[in-house]
Amino acid sequence: LIVATELRCQCLKTLPRIDFEDIKSLKVTPPGPHCTQTEVIATLKDGQEVCLDPEGPRLQKIIQKILKNAKSS
Amino acid sequence: LIVATELRCQCLKTLPRIDFEDIKSLKVTPPGPHCTQTEVIATLKDGQEVCLDPEGPRLQKIIQKILKNAKSS
Repeated sequence: LIVATELRCQCLKTLPRIDFEDIKSLKVTPPGPHCTQTEVIATLKDGQEVCLDPEGPRLQKIIQKILKNAKSS
Repeated sequence: LIVATELRCQCLKTLPRIDFEDIKSLKVTPPGPHCTQTEVIATLKDGQEVCLDPEGPRLQKIIQKILKNAKSS
Protein backbone atom coordinates (compact mmCIF):
# COMPACT_ATOMS: atom_id res chain seq x y z
CA LEU A 1 0.00 0.00 0.00
CA ILE A 2 1.55 3.30 -1.11
CA VAL A 3 -1.26 5.55 0.08
CA ALA A 4 -1.11 7.69 3.23
CA THR A 5 -3.65 10.00 4.87
CA GLU A 6 -5.87 12.27 2.75
CA LEU A 7 -4.76 15.57 4.30
CA ARG A 8 -1.29 15.50 2.81
CA CYS A 9 0.23 14.08 -0.36
CA GLN A 10 -0.96 10.51 -0.77
CA CYS A 11 1.72 9.23 -3.08
CA LEU A 12 5.06 8.45 -1.51
CA LYS A 13 6.30 6.55 -4.53
CA THR A 14 4.86 5.61 -7.91
CA LEU A 15 4.57 2.26 -9.59
CA PRO A 16 6.66 2.07 -12.78
CA ARG A 17 4.02 0.23 -14.81
CA ILE A 18 0.52 -1.14 -14.58
CA ASP A 19 -1.75 -3.29 -16.71
CA PHE A 20 -4.83 -1.58 -18.07
CA GLU A 21 -6.87 -4.68 -17.28
CA ASP A 22 -6.04 -4.50 -13.56
CA ILE A 23 -7.49 -1.02 -13.13
CA LYS A 24 -10.86 -0.65 -11.47
CA SER A 25 -10.71 3.12 -11.33
CA LEU A 26 -8.26 5.97 -11.63
CA LYS A 27 -8.25 9.11 -9.48
CA VAL A 28 -6.40 12.19 -10.68
CA THR A 29 -5.78 15.01 -8.20
CA PRO A 30 -4.25 18.32 -9.30
CA PRO A 31 -1.99 20.21 -6.88
CA GLY A 32 -3.89 21.84 -4.03
CA PRO A 33 -3.49 23.07 -0.46
CA HIS A 34 -3.10 19.45 0.75
CA CYS A 35 -0.31 18.62 -1.68
CA THR A 36 1.76 20.61 -4.18
CA GLN A 37 2.12 17.80 -6.68
CA THR A 38 -0.29 16.14 -9.07
CA GLU A 39 -1.26 12.68 -7.87
CA VAL A 40 -2.67 9.75 -9.79
CA ILE A 41 -4.02 6.87 -7.72
CA ALA A 42 -5.26 3.68 -9.34
CA THR A 43 -7.63 1.38 -7.50
CA LEU A 44 -6.97 -2.14 -8.75
CA LYS A 45 -9.57 -4.87 -9.17
CA ASP A 46 -8.14 -6.64 -6.12
CA GLY A 47 -8.84 -3.52 -4.05
CA GLN A 48 -5.22 -2.41 -3.81
CA GLU A 49 -4.44 1.28 -4.31
CA VAL A 50 -1.27 2.26 -6.15
CA CYS A 51 0.19 5.57 -7.24
CA LEU A 52 1.16 6.19 -10.85
CA ASP A 53 3.54 8.71 -12.38
CA PRO A 54 1.44 11.61 -13.77
CA GLU A 55 4.23 12.28 -16.26
CA GLY A 56 4.34 8.71 -17.55
CA PRO A 57 3.46 8.40 -21.23
CA ARG A 58 1.75 5.10 -20.49
CA LEU A 59 -0.70 6.80 -18.17
CA GLN A 60 -1.84 9.15 -20.95
CA LYS A 61 -2.47 6.09 -23.11
CA ILE A 62 -4.42 4.33 -20.38
CA ILE A 63 -6.66 7.36 -19.82
CA GLN A 64 -7.19 7.76 -23.55
CA LYS A 65 -8.05 4.08 -23.81
CA ILE A 66 -10.64 4.36 -21.03
CA LEU A 67 -12.24 7.43 -22.62
CA LYS A 68 -12.07 5.89 -26.10
CA ASN A 69 -13.79 2.72 -24.86
CA ALA A 70 -16.63 4.96 -23.71
CA LYS A 71 -16.99 6.18 -27.28
CA SER A 72 -17.15 2.77 -28.88
CA SER A 73 -19.86 1.48 -26.53
CA LEU B 1 -25.94 15.39 -6.27
CA ILE B 2 -25.80 13.16 -9.32
CA VAL B 3 -24.14 10.20 -7.65
CA ALA B 4 -25.94 7.02 -6.54
CA THR B 5 -24.72 3.87 -4.78
CA GLU B 6 -21.34 2.33 -5.61
CA LEU B 7 -22.62 -1.08 -6.65
CA ARG B 8 -24.29 0.10 -9.83
CA CYS B 9 -23.63 2.90 -12.28
CA GLN B 10 -23.02 6.10 -10.34
CA CYS B 11 -23.77 8.60 -13.05
CA LEU B 12 -27.40 9.21 -13.85
CA LYS B 13 -26.68 12.33 -15.86
CA THR B 14 -23.59 14.31 -16.76
CA LEU B 15 -22.82 17.97 -16.33
CA PRO B 16 -22.38 19.75 -19.68
CA ARG B 17 -19.38 21.82 -18.58
CA ILE B 18 -17.11 22.42 -15.66
CA ASP B 19 -14.36 24.86 -14.73
CA PHE B 20 -10.91 23.37 -14.33
CA GLU B 21 -10.36 25.54 -11.26
CA ASP B 22 -13.34 24.00 -9.45
CA ILE B 23 -11.99 20.46 -9.62
CA LYS B 24 -10.45 18.94 -6.53
CA SER B 25 -10.06 15.49 -8.06
CA LEU B 26 -11.27 13.42 -10.97
CA LYS B 27 -12.17 9.73 -10.84
CA VAL B 28 -12.32 7.72 -14.05
CA THR B 29 -13.93 4.27 -13.95
CA PRO B 30 -13.86 1.96 -16.98
CA PRO B 31 -16.83 -0.36 -17.60
CA GLY B 32 -16.98 -3.27 -15.17
CA PRO B 33 -19.39 -5.73 -13.57
CA HIS B 34 -21.01 -2.90 -11.59
CA CYS B 35 -21.68 -0.75 -14.62
CA THR B 36 -21.33 -1.21 -18.39
CA GLN B 37 -20.42 2.39 -19.11
CA THR B 38 -17.33 4.47 -18.48
CA GLU B 39 -17.91 6.94 -15.69
CA VAL B 40 -16.08 10.14 -14.86
CA ILE B 41 -16.83 11.69 -11.48
CA ALA B 42 -15.35 15.03 -10.46
CA THR B 43 -15.11 16.01 -6.82
CA LEU B 44 -15.34 19.79 -6.65
CA LYS B 45 -13.56 22.03 -4.16
CA ASP B 46 -16.85 22.62 -2.37
CA GLY B 47 -17.17 18.86 -1.82
CA GLN B 48 -19.88 18.33 -4.43
CA GLU B 49 -19.55 15.31 -6.73
CA VAL B 50 -20.62 15.66 -10.36
CA CYS B 51 -20.51 13.34 -13.34
CA LEU B 52 -18.83 14.39 -16.57
CA ASP B 53 -19.25 13.12 -20.10
CA PRO B 54 -16.34 10.73 -20.84
CA GLU B 55 -16.74 11.58 -24.53
CA GLY B 56 -16.57 15.33 -23.99
CA PRO B 57 -13.61 16.96 -25.72
CA ARG B 58 -13.33 19.38 -22.81
CA LEU B 59 -12.67 16.51 -20.43
CA GLN B 60 -9.68 15.36 -22.46
CA LYS B 61 -8.30 18.88 -22.25
CA ILE B 62 -8.86 19.05 -18.49
CA ILE B 63 -7.05 15.76 -17.92
CA GLN B 64 -4.20 16.82 -20.20
CA LYS B 65 -3.97 20.11 -18.32
CA ILE B 66 -3.75 18.32 -14.97
CA LEU B 67 -1.03 15.94 -16.21
CA LYS B 68 0.82 18.77 -17.97
CA ASN B 69 0.82 20.86 -14.78
CA ALA B 70 2.57 17.94 -13.13
CA LYS B 71 5.31 18.20 -15.73
CA SER B 72 5.90 21.92 -15.32
CA SER B 73 6.24 21.77 -11.54
